[in-house]
Amino acid sequence: MDRDKIHALLEKVRAGSMDIETAMAAFRTLPYEDLGFAMVDSHRALRKGFPEVIFCQNKTREQVVGIIDSLSQDHKTILATRADVEMFEAVNKKYPEAKYHRQGRIIQIGETPKARTKKSILVITAGTSDITVAEEAVVTAEAMGNIVEKIYDAGVAGIHRLFGRVEKIIGANVIVVVAGMDGALPSIIGGLVDRPVIAVPTSVGYGASFNGLSALLTMLNSCAPGVSVVNIDNGFGAGYIAAMINLAGE
Amino acid sequence: MDRDKIHALLEKVRAGSMDIETAMAAFRTLPYEDLGFAMVDSHRALRKGFPEVIFCQNKTREQVVGIIDSLSQDHKTILATRADVEMFEAVNKKYPEAKYHRQGRIIQIGETPKARTKKSILVITAGTSDITVAEEAVVTAEAMGNIVEKIYDAGVAGIHRLFGRVEKIIGANVIVVVAGMDGALPSIIGGLVDRPVIAVPTSVGYGASFNGLSALLTMLNSCAPGVSVVNIDNGFGAGYIAAMINLAGE
Amino acid sequence: MDRDKIHALLEKVRAGSMDIETAMAAFRTLPYEDLGFAMVDSHRALRKGFPEVIFCQNKTREQVVGIIDSLSQDHKTILATRADVEMFEAVNKKYPEAKYHRQGRIIQIGETPKARTKKSILVITAGTSDITVAEEAVVTAEAMGNIVEKIYDAGVAGIHRLFGRVEKIIGANVIVVVAGMDGALPSIIGGLVDRPVIAVPTSVGYGASFNGLSALLTMLNSCAPGVSVVNIDNGFGAGYIAAMINLAGE
Amino acid sequence: MDRDKIHALLEKVRAGSMDIETAMAAFRTLPYEDLGFAMVDSHRALRKGFPEVIFCQNKTREQVVGIIDSLSQDHKTILATRADVEMFEAVNKKYPEAKYHRQGRIIQIGETPKARTKKSILVITAGTSDITVAEEAVVTAEAMGNIVEKIYDAGVAGIHRLFGRVEKIIGANVIVVVAGMDGALPSIIGGLVDRPVIAVPTSVGYGASFNGLSALLTMLNSCAPGVSVVNIDNGFGAGYIAAMINLAGE
Amino acid sequence: MDRDKIHALLEKVRAGSMDIETAMAAFRTLPYEDLGFAMVDSHRALRKGFPEVIFCQNKTREQVVGIIDSLSQDHKTILATRADVEMFEAVNKKYPEAKYHRQGRIIQIGETPKARTKKSILVITAGTSDITVAEEAVVTAEAMGNIVEKIYDAGVAGIHRLFGRVEKIIGANVIVVVAGMDGALPSIIGGLVDRPVIAVPTSVGYGASFNGLSALLTMLNSCAPGVSVVNIDNGFGAGYIAAMINLAGE
Amino acid sequence: MDRDKIHALLEKVRAGSMDIETAMAAFRTLPYEDLGFAMVDSHRALRKGFPEVIFCQNKTREQVVGIIDSLSQDHKTILATRADVEMFEAVNKKYPEAKYHRQGRIIQIGETPKARTKKSILVITAGTSDITVAEEAVVTAEAMGNIVEKIYDAGVAGIHRLFGRVEKIIGANVIVVVAGMDGALPSIIGGLVDRPVIAVPTSVGYGASFNGLSALLTMLNSCAPGVSVVNIDNGFGAGYIAAMINLAGE
Amino acid sequence: MDRDKIHALLEKVRAGSMDIETAMAAFRTLPYEDLGFAMVDSHRALRKGFPEVIFCQNKTREQVVGIIDSLSQDHKTILATRADVEMFEAVNKKYPEAKYHRQGRIIQIGETPKARTKKSILVITAGTSDITVAEEAVVTAEAMGNIVEKIYDAGVAGIHRLFGRVEKIIGANVIVVVAGMDGALPSIIGGLVDRPVIAVPTSVGYGASFNGLSALLTMLNSCAPGVSVVNIDNGFGAGYIAAMINLAGE
Amino acid sequence: MDRDKIHALLEKVRAGSMDIETAMAAFRTLPYEDLGFAMVDSHRALRKGFPEVIFCQNKTREQVVGIIDSLSQDHKTILATRADVEMFEAVNKKYPEAKYHRQGRIIQIGETPKARTKKSILVITAGTSDITVAEEAVVTAEAMGNIVEKIYDAGVAGIHRLFGRVEKIIGANVIVVVAGMDGALPSIIGGLVDRPVIAVPTSVGYGASFNGLSALLTMLNSCAPGVSVVNIDNGFGAGYIAAMINLAGE
Repeated sequence: MDRDKIHALLEKVRAGSMDIETAMAAFRTLPYEDLGFAMVDSHRALRKGFPEVIFCQNKTREQVVGIIDSLSQDHKTILATRADVEMFEAVNKKYPEAKYHRQGRIIQIGETPKARTKKSILVITAGTSDITVAEEAVVTAEAMGNIVEKIYDAGVAGIHRLFGRVEKIIGANVIVVVAGMDGALPSIIGGLVDRPVIAVPTSVGYGASFNGLSALLTMLNSCAPGVSVVNIDNGFGAGYIAAMINLAGE
Repeated sequence: MDRDKIHALLEKVRAGSMDIETAMAAFRTLPYEDLGFAMVDSHRALRKGFPEVIFCQNKTREQVVGIIDSLSQDHKTILATRADVEMFEAVNKKYPEAKYHRQGRIIQIGETPKARTKKSILVITAGTSDITVAEEAVVTAEAMGNIVEKIYDAGVAGIHRLFGRVEKIIGANVIVVVAGMDGALPSIIGGLVDRPVIAVPTSVGYGASFNGLSALLTMLNSCAPGVSVVNIDNGFGAGYIAAMINLAGE
Repeated sequence: MDRDKIHALLEKVRAGSMDIETAMAAFRTLPYEDLGFAMVDSHRALRKGFPEVIFCQNKTREQVVGIIDSLSQDHKTILATRADVEMFEAVNKKYPEAKYHRQGRIIQIGETPKARTKKSILVITAGTSDITVAEEAVVTAEAMGNIVEKIYDAGVAGIHRLFGRVEKIIGANVIVVVAGMDGALPSIIGGLVDRPVIAVPTSVGYGASFNGLSALLTMLNSCAPGVSVVNIDNGFGAGYIAAMINLAGE
Repeated sequence: MDRDKIHALLEKVRAGSMDIETAMAAFRTLPYEDLGFAMVDSHRALRKGFPEVIFCQNKTREQVVGIIDSLSQDHKTILATRADVEMFEAVNKKYPEAKYHRQGRIIQIGETPKARTKKSILVITAGTSDITVAEEAVVTAEAMGNIVEKIYDAGVAGIHRLFGRVEKIIGANVIVVVAGMDGALPSIIGGLVDRPVIAVPTSVGYGASFNGLSALLTMLNSCAPGVSVVNIDNGFGAGYIAAMINLAGE
Repeated sequence: MDRDKIHALLEKVRAGSMDIETAMAAFRTLPYEDLGFAMVDSHRALRKGFPEVIFCQNKTREQVVGIIDSLSQDHKTILATRADVEMFEAVNKKYPEAKYHRQGRIIQIGETPKARTKKSILVITAGTSDITVAEEAVVTAEAMGNIVEKIYDAGVAGIHRLFGRVEKIIGANVIVVVAGMDGALPSIIGGLVDRPVIAVPTSVGYGASFNGLSALLTMLNSCAPGVSVVNIDNGFGAGYIAAMINLAGE
Repeated sequence: MDRDKIHALLEKVRAGSMDIETAMAAFRTLPYEDLGFAMVDSHRALRKGFPEVIFCQNKTREQVVGIIDSLSQDHKTILATRADVEMFEAVNKKYPEAKYHRQGRIIQIGETPKARTKKSILVITAGTSDITVAEEAVVTAEAMGNIVEKIYDAGVAGIHRLFGRVEKIIGANVIVVVAGMDGALPSIIGGLVDRPVIAVPTSVGYGASFNGLSALLTMLNSCAPGVSVVNIDNGFGAGYIAAMINLAGE
Repeated sequence: MDRDKIHALLEKVRAGSMDIETAMAAFRTLPYEDLGFAMVDSHRALRKGFPEVIFCQNKTREQVVGIIDSLSQDHKTILATRADVEMFEAVNKKYPEAKYHRQGRIIQIGETPKARTKKSILVITAGTSDITVAEEAVVTAEAMGNIVEKIYDAGVAGIHRLFGRVEKIIGANVIVVVAGMDGALPSIIGGLVDRPVIAVPTSVGYGASFNGLSALLTMLNSCAPGVSVVNIDNGFGAGYIAAMINLAGE
Repeated sequence: MDRDKIHALLEKVRAGSMDIETAMAAFRTLPYEDLGFAMVDSHRALRKGFPEVIFCQNKTREQVVGIIDSLSQDHKTILATRADVEMFEAVNKKYPEAKYHRQGRIIQIGETPKARTKKSILVITAGTSDITVAEEAVVTAEAMGNIVEKIYDAGVAGIHRLFGRVEKIIGANVIVVVAGMDGALPSIIGGLVDRPVIAVPTSVGYGASFNGLSALLTMLNSCAPGVSVVNIDNGFGAGYIAAMINLAGE
């Protein structure tokens, strides 16, 4: 299309129906207007393969409902993350079919799609307190068409607990590891498997955990290759990229 | 294999050809070899699918050559990262077939394997100064059996420069984005594609870049989902996980 | 003016109508007024060209009303920033003509002056959550006699959204860019235009955004020249310096 | 220049001496030229109004000379910042007309243009040690067509030293203030004038100055409105934005 | 006394009434028990010249009242800092003569002593919001027998406001300067006077003030000699050391 | 034990009473119990010598009670740390024998065991506000079978207060020192004794104490050898390792 | 003096011997001398009571010698701090009477004045490595007319070493305490005396001392009142303010 | 030794060959000896049970030799840590019996004492690069009379490598774990054993390891109880406290 516009423009110049100054002015706006890969917001699903996700934190209920109104014209599945119960109730009034994943704090509108691949994502947490973040990853990845399995509370301090689960761990295609405090679990998992590990530091801890900074640094410095890291408490981001990776072969 | 060994062992016990004490001792022997200063993980290739990689920084030449001696008994392809010219010369004396990737500062012993998949990894840098880190990723991913393409010096300040490359960008299966200073490039690439983006902050910059901290934080806070991050200047880590992802469907 | 006063003073001395001790004392009297808790700078409008602005945070309602009482003797337009509704109500009781800009959290007393120039300031935000800070800039710049245009929610993750607005962006004389999280937007805008960009990091985000530190560092390290930065969430400061720049040619 | 090339191209199209497909192909390559290691943005002068500036730090001499080779086809004035004497000598060998601004560490190729406006930029430093950074700003702003005046070593500890210069300060259209250690000078200058102040923190100092962090934070927290900040030691960035502002009315 | 004990011990040894082993055992406890400069807590007033001061933050009301009970047996003047109204009421119930300095958040029991010197301490604040911290210094210094004068809200952004007060400033024997945000005021005051300046950073500000860190660093890096610094918001500490200095000549 | 189980298992294999597949499966079964949200480590007491301790912060009451239900089948003494009164009441409803250590915020189920050694642990605090953390250490160490002595409020500012206690200090086998603010006390204690000192920084303080960071750094940099450090406010951890050390000789 | 000049000036105006324009111009002339690169504050000695001190770090030899040339016209005693041997030799060539305090790295021109008071300053260091910084304080304070005593290497880890010196400590009028690593010494000294303590953190240490940050924070958080702090390694600043305090009563 | 001197002194008193005043004077000087630059703590061996250790970093060769001269009069075993080869050669010239532990960078004078207990200390490193720090711990602990065992290069990324060593690990009385980068190893070891673990973070790593900060925070936040931490790279401190703990039962 852009190509077409430029072509048309040059033809007008050749035909003499457009003078050179006008043509030059047109170039100023053209190249930023339309580059072939994107035209409107609702094309995002096409481009990225998945629906828009609304990050509710710092948004008013009116803003969130308004965005859902707009998105729901084009999308089957919409997620709203970091949503508290009050937010859900506001959405639910207008969208009775909305569903609330309480642990993961996600509002979902539309059905969870069928799994697009038999390969699975495994989500592991180090402690009980990391489950909220883990569930955000689980719901996100499922909503993007993935089978997700879980091992919760499998922390480093009792590392023998992992060993009964080794087959489950080795069988996964992508692994999300969620841990706060010392953040050591992804290094260990990364040392056991030959699949990509997405590490999610959490703000769980106290004192020198500095709201997740400790776990974040640990994970960035992981001795095991094959580990990459998302933002502190960013369960959504981990679920999203894990889904992308898991669907890579499809 | 390990399973097989255990099975074999238990069979010997059952057959009475091995006593119980010997069996119990055997559970702890084979999977590593003690060099005194480094227990080389010769089983790693089996477990992780790829050869051991030696991180040369802070190691003496004797240590590096010693580790290569041990690894070369079992592996076809060995990489030694963060190697300066002097390190290469020390290795080259004993291993004349060793090859030095100067820009990526990697010593390679053994052939680069054929590509295991037609899907490709794309490595993009924001600036000229980021190329050293990018090349570390390129050599690593190639040594693991991947086709790697490159777009270098495509930074945010002249974002129009990206647009001629859009098809190349959209065609990649995994993208590694290497950037220092403001670290903004992964957010933009992440907004354009529906493939996983591995972001590598570099220590390029000055003043408030704080040796890569600025770029690291930018990338962790990326507004675009589908971006995960490795350590500052960790080109090897980025190439490694990109290779894992790219080979996922094989 | 001050020059005139000094001149007049010296003339009185020469004329003998003022003795030397009185003259010496006079050098230190007029330019401020002591309220006990705050020396209001009534000469500021003359010196800086604009009215005094009251920063309400950490001030009691009595203090704010008292400062307004003093300033209103000399100024037509007074702004009180970081004012919550309770503060507004306290002011409104005594100044019924006071107006509350709810989104920008600014109390305004006196009319917004006519635009002093046809050139315009453009205020852009990356996300919906940055609007509060942006509106602080908008109200400030308008109260200083500027035309202000807006593009809200034009973040990096969907960079194509910017392209439809390119003419608006290129047409602006000064641009204020407000962004939290990765803070990448000013780099991109700075790469597109040849006008000064004032970047405002916001505390929007979570985890490794560290209350705006991430966006602040990104902006300070911007690869695009022509970008300078104000404090985190400092919409007022951005609006103020943008107004100064925009009125430069007048 | 670039404008001229596009104009010539369109004329050839109109004249029929170039067919449309050839013209379209030419557009794809025009705005950048691939040097292998750096895509030089020759379009930049058109878009930003000023020539490309080369940041030498972390670049090899070959890279810098190569970029100059490419840029010099289209630009009259080229700056290479953060250049040491060795870099200058390498450039000078090929470009005998190159000039080295020793204090500002800038290589300049091509003449400094005549001033485009009678309004002037004032560059102030707090100490003697800040002059290197200040000179980077001075050379940059002059190369962009501005008159630049200087007040060096006018620090806060002897604030009376500023008072003899008040007229010079008040007469400037834009002020760049360069300071390390406590970084207090921009607050004071900002309190005296009604013109925009660009503050440049420097890494001058020791101990708790933390390589300029102290001055940076001071400036970001300036009590005086009308102050915005660039990166630590970023004299180039300050000169660039000051030039943009100063030329705003032209 | 310690000397006496050792003397007595040695005499016993000489007299043969104590054997050497017993004497050696006695040395083990002796040197840590009593070194001549202090025996009991209530001797603090003698040693330090001033009464014990109770830091209320993090203490229960019972603890504070209990400490007052104990101290009031020996001291005429007792201060309890960081006390909120509820704490005062709890103290007041038992000590009806207790007085509450609301702005400085200090409970005082006992009369303020007469000034021990005619020299005065001057307390200056940059802004209205710094007054709480300043008053903590004022009450403390007065309770230690000093005349204290005040200049409040004399910040850097309107530096001319200081000049009417120059005589007051130059006349002070010790100066306490309280400032948040950019923390620039102590540098300026330190440049004007030849008396010691105690700088108190406050947590007033937002964004990159990082709860007073910005002002703290500014003050530690002051270009003016003769400035030393206490903890953020530590008005008590500033008043205490200022009092010590002011009483030095007595 | 585990050894015994493996031995028994191998014997069954040898005897033919267990087939090989069953044996292989058995290697991964007993040592944990899956509660769905938490895999309780019931073997911990065997392996570590002490009962499982529940960290209540960030756990719901249901989770804590559930974990106690599981643990109480195997353990005599259970501790739940960081428990507020509401948590205790929830536990108390089901476990009437539960006891609440209010100062240390610990719920204890089961009797405190008799001391396993006559050697004692000494817990010292610098201030009154550090007692909460100290008591967490005391209760923990007592529950692990130790005699614990205390010296509270013996801070550095009144160092003479320590001297009357020297015999108590020198007599201890392990010393836990709890201090906030300047965190200087462990250095002094470490200089006096030849026994290990466990230093616990607390978040007590304000301003530049940065929630315990100041005390933490002080302790890590202690000039006295024989000092090691646990996390900020980690009274439990200090009590635990002190107990381990104290029981070393038994 | 300045008052006298103004008085004289006004009298001339009154007498008609000076016209008003000349008078107005005169207000801004004498108090500094412009060297091009440094406005030397020759009035400083009058205003501050002490000679100008040159901070050599980051200055060239030419700059330092030039500043001495200018200052030596008005001052008897000049100090140049942070001077290495090469700097001294450059100065010595022109000023043969210059003297080099090697440990304190200070060049002194002119005699050390006689003590202006019998009261003394005591400088204490925690370790041997802190002596360089301490000597900077010693030379500075002596050059300002003070008797200075020293106790070096009296650190906290062997606190008993202080006790033989208690009389010396208690006898001092002002105490400067220099310490790196844990920085605990000022707290202890501050607890022993009723005189002001100036604490100087040093960059001595490693690891988590973070180049003096640890000692700095410790000192700012000192539990002992009467302690104030200067920048890391700022021996000069400590000596300067100590001198000011010590001369307070004169 | 010191004990002997005191004994001799007391005997002289008893014998009447020394009068009491002379004896008392002797006590004042006994416990330290003033070398001008360092008061050597010869009393330390008595009080702490071990010889003085000299920290060479930041000390001149003259200072180190001088301190050894003084200490060698009273001590059999002297250690000088952080000593480079040049330092050793300087010491060796005067003390031919001195021995240099090259890996641990320690000079030792005097024999290593026999083990005082059969219990052993185990020192584990995560990587090859951590060995320098580990050897510092080993030499220190051996010089204090302990049997030390080692497991080097047993990092988390290949956790199976630990399992062959489990008996060695479980058999140790105290464990020192040395690790850089992610610092995860102490958490895992701490989860396996019921003995105290001393964790030593090292500055090994790059990027976001921030010179050991990452490993330090990981270790402070260890999920496994029974772990305490010393300063970054502080092998000496770890060996020292491990020795103290190991000798606890003797």
